[in-house]
Amino acid sequence: MLKEEFDMKVGVIGASGYVGGELLRLLVVHPDVELSVCTSRQNAGEYVHRRHPSLKGFINLTFSSMELDKLVKQCDLVFVSVPHGNALNIVKDLYDTGIKIIDLSADYRLKNADDYVKWYGWEHPFPDLLSKSVYGIPELHRNEIKDAQLVSCPGCMAVTSILALNPLMENKLIDTSHIIVDAKIGSSGAGSTDSPGTHHAMRYGVIRPYKPSKHRHTGEIEQELSIVSGEKIKISMSPHAVNLVRGILTTNHVFLNAPISEIELWKAYRNSYKDEPFIRLIKDKKGLYKFPDPKFVVGSNFCDVGFDMDENTNRIVALSASDNLMKGAAGSAIQNMNLMCGYNETDGLKYTPLTPV
Amino acid sequence: MLKEEFDMKVGVIGASGYVGGELLRLLVVHPDVELSVCTSRQNAGEYVHRRHPSLKGFINLTFSSMELDKLVKQCDLVFVSVPHGNALNIVKDLYDTGIKIIDLSADYRLKNADDYVKWYGWEHPFPDLLSKSVYGIPELHRNEIKDAQLVSCPGCMAVTSILALNPLMENKLIDTSHIIVDAKIGSSGAGSTDSPGTHHAMRYGVIRPYKPSKHRHTGEIEQELSIVSGEKIKISMSPHAVNLVRGILTTNHVFLNAPISEIELWKAYRNSYKDEPFIRLIKDKKGLYKFPDPKFVVGSNFCDVGFDMDENTNRIVALSASDNLMKGAAGSAIQNMNLMCGYNETDGLKYTPLTPV
Amino acid sequence: MLKEEFDMKVGVIGASGYVGGELLRLLVVHPDVELSVCTSRQNAGEYVHRRHPSLKGFINLTFSSMELDKLVKQCDLVFVSVPHGNALNIVKDLYDTGIKIIDLSADYRLKNADDYVKWYGWEHPFPDLLSKSVYGIPELHRNEIKDAQLVSCPGCMAVTSILALNPLMENKLIDTSHIIVDAKIGSSGAGSTDSPGTHHAMRYGVIRPYKPSKHRHTGEIEQELSIVSGEKIKISMSPHAVNLVRGILTTNHVFLNAPISEIELWKAYRNSYKDEPFIRLIKDKKGLYKFPDPKFVVGSNFCDVGFDMDENTNRIVALSASDNLMKGAAGSAIQNMNLMCGYNETDGLKYTPLTPV
Amino acid sequence: MLKEEFDMKVGVIGASGYVGGELLRLLVVHPDVELSVCTSRQNAGEYVHRRHPSLKGFINLTFSSMELDKLVKQCDLVFVSVPHGNALNIVKDLYDTGIKIIDLSADYRLKNADDYVKWYGWEHPFPDLLSKSVYGIPELHRNEIKDAQLVSCPGCMAVTSILALNPLMENKLIDTSHIIVDAKIGSSGAGSTDSPGTHHAMRYGVIRPYKPSKHRHTGEIEQELSIVSGEKIKISMSPHAVNLVRGILTTNHVFLNAPISEIELWKAYRNSYKDEPFIRLIKDKKGLYKFPDPKFVVGSNFCDVGFDMDENTNRIVALSASDNLMKGAAGSAIQNMNLMCGYNETDGLKYTPLTPV
Repeated sequence: MLKEEFDMKVGVIGASGYVGGELLRLLVVHPDVELSVCTSRQNAGEYVHRRHPSLKGFINLTFSSMELDKLVKQCDLVFVSVPHGNALNIVKDLYDTGIKIIDLSADYRLKNADDYVKWYGWEHPFPDLLSKSVYGIPELHRNEIKDAQLVSCPGCMAVTSILALNPLMENKLIDTSHIIVDAKIGSSGAGSTDSPGTHHAMRYGVIRPYKPSKHRHTGEIEQELSIVSGEKIKISMSPHAVNLVRGILTTNHVFLNAPISEIELWKAYRNSYKDEPFIRLIKDKKGLYKFPDPKFVVGSNFCDVGFDMDENTNRIVALSASDNLMKGAAGSAIQNMNLMCGYNETDGLKYTPLTPV
Repeated sequence: MLKEEFDMKVGVIGASGYVGGELLRLLVVHPDVELSVCTSRQNAGEYVHRRHPSLKGFINLTFSSMELDKLVKQCDLVFVSVPHGNALNIVKDLYDTGIKIIDLSADYRLKNADDYVKWYGWEHPFPDLLSKSVYGIPELHRNEIKDAQLVSCPGCMAVTSILALNPLMENKLIDTSHIIVDAKIGSSGAGSTDSPGTHHAMRYGVIRPYKPSKHRHTGEIEQELSIVSGEKIKISMSPHAVNLVRGILTTNHVFLNAPISEIELWKAYRNSYKDEPFIRLIKDKKGLYKFPDPKFVVGSNFCDVGFDMDENTNRIVALSASDNLMKGAAGSAIQNMNLMCGYNETDGLKYTPLTPV
Repeated sequence: MLKEEFDMKVGVIGASGYVGGELLRLLVVHPDVELSVCTSRQNAGEYVHRRHPSLKGFINLTFSSMELDKLVKQCDLVFVSVPHGNALNIVKDLYDTGIKIIDLSADYRLKNADDYVKWYGWEHPFPDLLSKSVYGIPELHRNEIKDAQLVSCPGCMAVTSILALNPLMENKLIDTSHIIVDAKIGSSGAGSTDSPGTHHAMRYGVIRPYKPSKHRHTGEIEQELSIVSGEKIKISMSPHAVNLVRGILTTNHVFLNAPISEIELWKAYRNSYKDEPFIRLIKDKKGLYKFPDPKFVVGSNFCDVGFDMDENTNRIVALSASDNLMKGAAGSAIQNMNLMCGYNETDGLKYTPLTPV
Repeated sequence: MLKEEFDMKVGVIGASGYVGGELLRLLVVHPDVELSVCTSRQNAGEYVHRRHPSLKGFINLTFSSMELDKLVKQCDLVFVSVPHGNALNIVKDLYDTGIKIIDLSADYRLKNADDYVKWYGWEHPFPDLLSKSVYGIPELHRNEIKDAQLVSCPGCMAVTSILALNPLMENKLIDTSHIIVDAKIGSSGAGSTDSPGTHHAMRYGVIRPYKPSKHRHTGEIEQELSIVSGEKIKISMSPHAVNLVRGILTTNHVFLNAPISEIELWKAYRNSYKDEPFIRLIKDKKGLYKFPDPKFVVGSNFCDVGFDMDENTNRIVALSASDNLMKGAAGSAIQNMNLMCGYNETDGLKYTPLTPV
């Protein structure tokens, strides 16, 4: 199943984790590019398929250690998929060479350097570079992405929640002082580092509130919704670990400013997303799929979006579902690459969701 | 493992479902009572262990069909565990004989007959009986339960949410116009009737918002919180089906009226629950169990309660976890029986949670 | 994501179940063919994406009821995906029109009409047609498939087990009087019909031996291994339902005729499969993936094959893993279609396994 | 829920793992004994409920480090629940003080010191003590256990398999040269140490053959079946990790020596187990529970045993199901303690299985 060679060559820095593996999974069959380098400090010298067994037969590479010069020679674009904090210098050094970069860490997502102190607890060493980085949600920043040298992919829960709330904010339909984001996420979202809390016997069957307040994705969501709405937005976010591997649902509880009919609300959503290749509006009166559920997007790059109206308390429940490793990470990264490189936006991403699984 | 006989005899009407089975599981080893009758329309004549295989060796009964006269002769107390709507007449007829009744359906939970029209869509045929029925949360109504002939057990998500919010309402700490109850529940909560949506291949791995507004438990929660707070309360409830069998987490997002320290808030919770045998306050800075999670109560009658404070938006995240078949149904029913019959409140309920499972 | 039109048109009879849905999932993005008809008795008139929500955006068809004349006019090849027994007449009628047919039921798998009496309990009405039907494992019958009008896809556990045992039988390495096939399978393998045993609360967490003897796939495995080995083979098969949706592992316990080194055994496997696009040999001393496991093939058409040697009892443990809806059903069907129609054998099947999921 | 004090005091050495936690779970509510010491090297000084959150409210102890003198003063009986190899000296030192010991490691299970070289790869330092240790399956060695100072609890898969095969061996019904033990087990069986292979994202949804040959429990099963049958037995064992936390199924494929009717076989099983409080014979023609399945024993001390007959190949499929932390570990340990101390054998073990969970 090994592919032929292409002119465009890409590398993945930090290719041994779940997000790195997902990038590889997509790149080894992408119709336009060739994967030429995979780095991993811990696994340097090891065959990639030892760490990512499902890729056996698709990839013959071994992991290398990261060497800037070699990387820049071998690649036209680089994905950075290392833990938060570790991308700061890597991205800076790559940026200075002029190479295209897609960063999947949080290190260049926030525009305001102070927000790194608030949400991450450290000073950002390269505040100037923050303004050069484009926040990688094509549905919000498509044109900027096309021209960017550096794109910072959003947090998995952040992008999923933002896409549910965006039409409400854009149309100024809701009370912006009570925005609750209740997120539920699978175990691959926490990364591949093992700990007592990630052991199958302890993680299976949980409904675990793991950061009811102060979750770092809060900062990103506030940043983007503030841009969309034109006012300073604060949100109340609480994520929960639930018993699946891939998938996010965000339940966004908000309150209407003024009465609106269901049809009007539907139109607002359709206006926002009618040409979007990776957003599906889900709202049905019957059948299994009345509202978004990650069960029906797994393995695809879709973010399914929908809503319910609660007359009892004047509430809108805005719902969105994604595969955290796809639209929530590697899928968005490929979508961004396609835009940055002038390919068809859906190239290498035309996956039907894998259901049931 | 068959028990000896006791003077006090009880019956279970509708013993073939998951809640019925859980009642049997507890009753066959309860130290004070004897299970003398199990009815099931569909399974009459069948050995009980055919339907509830795990009880093999603990019970020799067969299911019978329901005959009022016989039942009243054979039992001192009856549990009614039939689908909503089906208990209306059964409870009325039993009540008129003077026998003690614990109803696990929703048919006698709401005090205001109009609320049945609002939440259930039908007129209650016996509105007078509603005032005789005691809402079966011992932590709120212990003394009334002791004297009641008819106790109506709360809905599983309702009792779990109420116990998280009660101390906040009692002490008037929160803005009562924005109370969000985001609930997550396992598959046994939906009952044993099979349908396309409950098939393992379709239900496994979901995060399914199944009634983002208008869920019927909303009415119960509003009723009880209105009593506690002394004002008319409305709540915004959204339940989600997640991938486990037993367990509920409720994430209750509320906003503070006035600043309060974490210690003061903790004291409010402790004051409400310090003598409660089945409530544990969970709040830890380290370890696996920082906040409530049903993983650590499964198989027990505990409702674990805790909270987090979010300074960013002045929010309290009140959290509670229970086993929906125990504290959420059969466990509460036994606790109520113990109170109604003068036994020790914890008799037959001293189960350590089964962890890990 | 809707595709352009192609000259080659195909139909799916019985498109509402899990196998039918998987066929659609593959066909809507297949590079060579167009899906023009989906039939379903129960869902006629309904949009296909109501029943298969994950396909929303990929398909605009509604289910139709089956009408032979129309079908033959609209399609060049037809997949039959109806319950066992129901395909008997459908396939016969289609065959007589001269159209190409891929049958996913068991109705035309066995060559000897008596075997239908033995394993299925009924007389086959069209015994002559059995000899026209090719058993659809390309690794065993590639050339026959290329020329066939009717191909019968193998049972999911059958194909998985056969591919593990084939090299051992071909090379006459084992004692043919003690062949144990211990199979483990996910819930999608049982089909989408709901029953008490498939309810999530009852099916979750099981290790359920569901037909320790007399499972119908036994007949197919015996048939094919008898052909490979040139002697009449009997096997001892026991399948188990385990807690996942997609995936099969077969553990085939057999005993050596004569000593053989691990390297010789490895060579036998490699000789059998070295040019096979959908078989991967898995045998590693370290890492996560020492032996086949369906975790690492899910969503792909691979059958991973490997073995272990047990000197204690002179045993070979031949292992194989597949996705029961892919190589075990719809994936094999597409592979057969590609061969029958002269396309590249891997067209529309170049999926990297979805891991982790 | 804290218990009163008792005269009989017990300690648990190595109380921080899953088996240690399960021992505590049972001991804190056992009617005859008091838990006075819990040791853990890594967690010394920490409250026990930090490590075992579900026990909050049942236990006020902190973990201590192990000091022999103190332990012997504080306890009448000690459970040793440390990793294999680590119990060698601990048990020897305890034995020399005269205290009663129940060892849950493998270090004193095998009678023949050579077998430690064969299965574990090390020389046993105290071969003389092996003959003093009683193998802790009450169904096989009840009287010896009553008089023992040192009981060695069996391996979880070993006891489960032995109980399925015992009646067949006792009655010399089967060909002893082809005994296949195909075992399936949940994630708690591997212990609480985290590793890449136990991470939820990697362990969820697997059917992983983790030691198709040479698994250490093979030695125990061979030892015990050799005693029962009076001849030297070898078995072919292959365990598999499946997607649940608690539970073992063993599928034991064996071949008949001579024809036998189903009724005769049933009688053989009943004769072996008719007075056993923790063995249930499971064999039903209808309903959900036709054969043993750990789903229906979870949380209890039962080993459910049954069989199927396969006329096609003259095979018996002997099946058994247990909870690996109960009958497979801590439950057996308590049962042994009850026998060693003269209590009722079922004291503290009258748990109805927790179903559904």
